Formats: sequence, structure tokens, C-alpha cells
Amino acid sequence: MRTRPLKVALLGCGVVGSEVTRIITTQSADLAARIGAPIELAGIAVRRANRVRAGVPAELLTTDATALVKRGDIDVVVEVIGGIEPVRTLITTAFEHGASVVSANKALLAADGASLHAKAVEHGVDLYYEAAVAGAIPLIRPLRESLAGDKVNRVLGIVNGTTNFILDKMDSTGAGYSEALDEATALGYAEADPTADVEGFDAAAKAAILAGIAFHTRVTIDDVHREGLTEVTAADIASARKMGCTVKLLAICERARDGRSVTARVHPAMIPLSHPLASVRGAYNAVFVEAEAAGQLMFYGPGAGGAPTASAVLGDLVAACRNKLAATTGAGESAYTQLPVSPMGDVVTRYHISLDVADKPGVLAQVATVFAEHDVSIDTVRQQGRNQGSGDDAAVEQGGGRREGGEASLVVVTHRAPDAALSATVSSLRKLDTVRGVASIMRVEGE
Amino acid sequence: MRTRPLKVALLGCGVVGSEVTRIITTQSADLAARIGAPIELAGIAVRRANRVRAGVPAELLTTDATALVKRGDIDVVVEVIGGIEPVRTLITTAFEHGASVVSANKALLAADGASLHAKAVEHGVDLYYEAAVAGAIPLIRPLRESLAGDKVNRVLGIVNGTTNFILDKMDSTGAGYSEALDEATALGYAEADPTADVEGFDAAAKAAILAGIAFHTRVTIDDVHREGLTEVTAADIASARKMGCTVKLLAICERARDGRSVTARVHPAMIPLSHPLASVRGAYNAVFVEAEAAGQLMFYGPGAGGAPTASAVLGDLVAACRNKLAATTGAGESAYTQLPVSPMGDVVTRYHISLDVADKPGVLAQVATVFAEHDVSIDTVRQQGRNQGSGDDAAVEQGGGRREGGEASLVVVTHRAPDAALSATVSSLRKLDTVRGVASIMRVEGE
Repeated sequence: MRTRPLKVALLGCGVVGSEVTRIITTQSADLAARIGAPIELAGIAVRRANRVRAGVPAELLTTDATALVKRGDIDVVVEVIGGIEPVRTLITTAFEHGASVVSANKALLAADGASLHAKAVEHGVDLYYEAAVAGAIPLIRPLRESLAGDKVNRVLGIVNGTTNFILDKMDSTGAGYSEALDEATALGYAEADPTADVEGFDAAAKAAILAGIAFHTRVTIDDVHREGLTEVTAADIASARKMGCTVKLLAICERARDGRSVTARVHPAMIPLSHPLASVRGAYNAVFVEAEAAGQLMFYGPGAGGAPTASAVLGDLVAACRNKLAATTGAGESAYTQLPVSPMGDVVTRYHISLDVADKPGVLAQVATVFAEHDVSIDTVRQQGRNQGSGDDAAVEQGGGRREGGEASLVVVTHRAPDAALSATVSSLRKLDTVRGVASIMRVEGE
Repeated sequence: MRTRPLKVALLGCGVVGSEVTRIITTQSADLAARIGAPIELAGIAVRRANRVRAGVPAELLTTDATALVKRGDIDVVVEVIGGIEPVRTLITTAFEHGASVVSANKALLAADGASLHAKAVEHGVDLYYEAAVAGAIPLIRPLRESLAGDKVNRVLGIVNGTTNFILDKMDSTGAGYSEALDEATALGYAEADPTADVEGFDAAAKAAILAGIAFHTRVTIDDVHREGLTEVTAADIASARKMGCTVKLLAICERARDGRSVTARVHPAMIPLSHPLASVRGAYNAVFVEAEAAGQLMFYGPGAGGAPTASAVLGDLVAACRNKLAATTGAGESAYTQLPVSPMGDVVTRYHISLDVADKPGVLAQVATVFAEHDVSIDTVRQQGRNQGSGDDAAVEQGGGRREGGEASLVVVTHRAPDAALSATVSSLRKLDTVRGVASIMRVEGE
């Protein structure tokens, strides 16, 4: 084994950074054996150097991150600061000074992964970021390496623990969105400003990264259709239950059937209770991958947290160090297919639509005509009392949809159709006088 | 991109080999883009060259595998023949002639992985075998690379699809073992001679491979305690249900609590229905990994079949080819911990024991005394009528265990204890006159 250590610089020392520090300092013999040389923590860039951090050697702390990445003797820079700037400049500077980079930064990778990869190639170094998607769950390496000889057609995942916690809580207790969010906040699963999670920005960044890797093309967060879960109601969840489904915030990346384009989207969707993703509880993450030869694979685990994220960072750090020792680089970006990303309107999916309708004959006929005009085929129609719980549904005969003495409500589930056609159908339905309102629209996936 | 192709030799052209051939020939542009150079199938060694194989170029077939691996211009040999010899010699010869090897051969790797790895290192080539464990499910690469900076404490998995199909069938239909095996055979899930699957040899080979990689030590199939599922009865499955459990044939690899040894075993066990492995249906495989920082991860997918196995082979082939191009090798064997493998007696587990006992007072006291003498603590005791279904159990008071007018049966579930103590307890119980027989013993895991 080489005795001269590889030097590692750490940018950021919050929850993840301090766990990375702990593992590097306490597991040094194991890491050295696995890498083939010892590693040495050469410096830790922080915002406030005088804050006491348990287990973090104070003499390594510096507030000058730029000077740290410019030292020239650093083999690998580990970045766990997050955000776009100054991180992008720091990473680029690290590359220019010959360091490989391990990052947990989904926002930056989803915004500008291509230029970072190009910079890494230019300087003959590695850029790894397993920790950016789904915490400790190995996903990027399996997609990029294990499935390198296969053709991935679909990636369907729960990649945000906060929203899964909220939806799981709503599903298991009947709570509304606000109540479930409050509990998530109280338990530390949601941040004080939960926007990035509940509006789907976090999941969209991960979807962009996964889609790019899965389909060997470039996808940025701007290409990802995004809907959060703030409008999901307890009634939606109850409706899902009636269909034998549950509601999850899904990141879905698909190759079009003709193979000429891809799509990436994040939105709440109903999935059947029998689908493996339906039983993913609490803040766990899970990603389902469908590949031509491999079939259906699922990867499950903790999607966030200091220790799990540090595990993913360390795996990448060992790989980057091994490559440095061997004077080589690992499998980098593979974007050769240059497949374009189609808009949401081209996505083929199914809708579950709840309509509040006038209580008079002929309503279903009108509604059905609107679907037919948009070439959207109806799978099932059910009538249910408005604001009523489960248990009193009745299948609706053609020409029915009527409930004596109460406001009627129609639940329509469509067959698969382009999202644009489904969306146009809903617009037309809103214009019918007999349709008093569209109570909810949710896509149905995973069947 | 380099235009001179990398040359690949294929040993074996059965279900997996023909699928490997199909992917190499039909996906050549994708593979070339991912590798950085085209690959060329240079020869396929088969037993009978004159058999027609759809999609397999007849001019590549040869019956002289030795000559093929000795050609000297082969970059990577893909071995999908299986078994120990002549494969070991062929692989060694391939190494000596400068070829990396991708193998799907669990038996060989579990018997003699260490010497093969040493040979690969000696000749500066790669030895990859993702397909040897759990088909398409990425497991070896995640354990070896993604978790390279973490400490794995436990691997618990369903790694044999045939036995999972049989147990799932028994659980869902109440069928007995023979009936479920017949169905598995009829559907092609079990081979004509099912011994390797139902006696646990196949799972034991996989357990050895997983344990070695997870704990960075050497484990061979001879180190793995092995019990098959041929003695699992419909009554055992019914008993499991009563405890809120199901029965699975598990491969379990554990690091001892003191960290100084490891264990590896394959046997049927009850696991709670709430455990993610409990819902693994049919011939699917799933492996649960517990690591110190990452927490609990699960990997799920098809564990066998031509196409899934070929997917794993191709992933390794791409990696081996990339390494050849970069004149480097990937992460090889890591056995530096040299942790010894402890015998089954040292494993700490729980037993579920069904006893047929005499119907008279004092029996439970006698039985409880035997447990106490062996320092095995009892969790629960239940009495049930022999040959009776569920629904008429009664909790047993101390001094009870008695059923008027029927032969009594006691079901004891222990707390955690060394397997040797549990096993000695059962031997002593058999010697009591009041114990007419030990109807079943099963370990309880996953809690």
C-alpha cells in the first residue's frame, strides 16, 4: 500500500459534513485498506470558523474555501455546501487545480451538470454525486454502471422524504395537508420553509439527474414538469383508497415509445396499493427502474439525513481516490443519445377526475361527449355524494350520474391518453353549465 | 472514439449466452458509445457447434473453448457455462492470456473466488461477476463500491427465486411443499432436479459471495450453514401466519456484535409480514443490507432468467471494456479484514418451536425448566390443538398447556440466544417423556 496519503478537502461542515469528517477520522484504517492508500483530511471550509463542532479538528477549519481548493495538493474535494454559487466556481476551481470532486449538490447538478462534467473531462478528473439523489440509496452508480449494457425505459421514484412523510401521514390518519405538514415540521422532516420539498423543486432536480443518466442524454431541472403536493386533499387520498390506490409524489422519467424523446416530471399520482412503491413509508425513498433486459428493479432506503448522505459521499470518495491512485477516471457523463425532452403535453398517462355536477338527467351523457371529443377514452365512472366518506358509492349506468335530493359528484378514470388531451378535456368540462366545479384531478401511474 | 474494436469471447450459449449475444449484436452502437470503442464478438464456445441458435452467428461458434481463450487477441472473456471445471481452467487460461473475465458462475466464485481474484491481479486484468448473485439486481457493485466507505453489518436476502416461488405458493394457497414444487416445475421455475435450489446450495453459494464482499473477508460455500426448505410444512406456514409472519428461505450474513467474526447461513425462517422482504412475491429476489451510516437499504428485482442475467453480464462487460481501454482495472477483491467465519452455533437468533406434548398437568413447567437450564429465555408460549387450523388458540397460563380431551401442542417462541443453546434445548426437550415429538423448529428473523 502507498504510504503517502491522498489529500481531501471538505467544503461545508453541517449535518452531512460533520458525519463525513467523523467517518474519515474514525474509519481511517478501513478506508486506507479499501483505497490502497491512506487519506488525510487537509482542510474544511466553513462559514464560521469559531463555532465548536464536536469531533471536527479545529485546526483544519478555514473560512477561505477558495484558497483551500486552490492549494494544488488536494486530490479530492468533497462539496456538501449546496446551492449554485459560490459552489459552482469552487468546483470549477478545484478541477482547474487537478482535484476530483464529490458533491451532494442536486440543485447545481440539475441546473448545470453538463458544463461541470465537461470541465472535469477537460482537467482529467472525476465528478461524482451519488449523494445528490436519494441519499444513501445506490442509484447513480447502478444506473450508470450496472445497467450500462441495458436500455432503461422508465424510472419511477419517491425521491423526497418530506413529501412522502406528509402523504403517508395523510393516508394513514386521514389528516389534511396542513396538519400533516405541521407534524413533519415538528418532527424535523420538513424545514421551516418547506417550499423546495412540497412544491416539488427538490424532486424535480433529482428527476433531471436521473433522466439524464438513465437515458444517456441531458436533462436540466427546467425540462422537468413540476407540480407539488400542496393541493392534495384528504378527499383525494380517500378517493385513491376507493380505487385500491394510494397517493405518492412521484418523479417519473420515461423514454417515449418511439424511442426518439424522453420526458421527466414530478407530480402527485395515485398508484395501486400492490405496487412496490405504495408500501414505502415515512421519510424513506425508493426508486423503481424498468430496463429492457433487467426487467423491474427497485432500490429502497433512507433518502436523506446526515449519516446516510455521508455513506453515499464516502462511497464516491473511495472511488475518486482509487482512480487518483490508478491515474485514471471513472465512467463520466454519457449524453451521446442527445434525446430531446418532450413537454408534459406529450406524456401519455391516465387521469382520475372528480367533478361536482348538477343533479339532473343527461349530465353523464354531456360529460362523456366531452371526453369523446378529445379522443380520451373512459375507463370507469362512479357517482358519489359530495363531502361524503367512503362506503356509499354506486356504479353509474349510462345516462345516470344522478342522486335524488343531493348534489351529484362524478368520478371519472380515463384510459391512457396524452396529457394535452386530458388537460384539454378538463378545460372543456369546466365550460359545461352542468359541471359546477372540478374538485380534483390526479394522474394514475404504476399500472 | 477508438475505432479498433475490443474483442469479446463468449463461453457458453444457453439461455443467458444467447441473450448476451443478442444484446451485443443488436445494441452495438449504444455499447460502443458507452464504452468508448466498439466491441466485437470474436468467438462463442459451445458444446455442440451444429445446433441452430436463432440470432447467433454460426461462423463464431467453436467447440474448442481452450483455443478460444488462448487466442491472445481477446480483451474480455464472458463465461456463462457454470460449474467448477473445466471453467476454472478456462478462466485461469484467459487471465494468463491477458483477458479480463466476466462470469455468472456462483458455484465457482463461492468455491474458489480467492484464487481466481489472485490470478486476475497477477495478470493485471479484471474479474467481474455481478450476474452470479441475484440476476439483474445490482448488488456486488453497490456493496463493493457504493458502500466502500461504510460498514456493512448485515445482509439478509431472498436470493433464490425457485424457493421463493414455492414458499409464496404455499403461503398464498395453503399448498404443501410437494404440490408447490410440482407447480414450480410445471411453470419452469424449478429444474427437473431441483436439489441445488430446494436444498439451499444455490443460495449458500450466493451467501458466501455476498458475505465476503460485504465484510471484506473470505467466505466460501463450505463456511455457510445450509438448510433447505424440503421440511417446511403447510403447518409451519400456518403457524407463521398466526405470529404475523411468513416463511422465506433466507441467506443471512452477519458481522458478530464484537466485530471479530462473521457468520453466513441459509435456512427457512419466519419474518414479520411488515418486513420489506415479506412482500417479495413469486420468483423475485430481494436483498436487504444494513450498514452503519447508510441504514437499511433494499435491492429488489428478477433474480434469474436469460435477459435479466444478461443485463448484469453486460454491465460488467462494459466496465471491463472501459478498464481495458483506460489500461486500468476496477475495484477487485477486498479481503483485508481476514475476519474468521464462526460456526452456526455462535449465531444469535430466535426459535419458534412446536411440540406435541402429553395432555397432563405440569408439562409446561417441565418444558420451561429445560429452556431455563440452557439459558434460553422464552418470549411467548401458546397452546393449540394438534392438526387444528387457526382461530382456537389460547394463551397459556404458567402451569397450563393442557387441553382436556385432546392431545396438547405447545408453541414456544424464544428470545434471542446462541443457536447452539437453542439446539441443545431442543435435544433435551426430545428426551422428556412428556414431549411426544418436536413437530417443527424454525428460526425467526428480521425483527
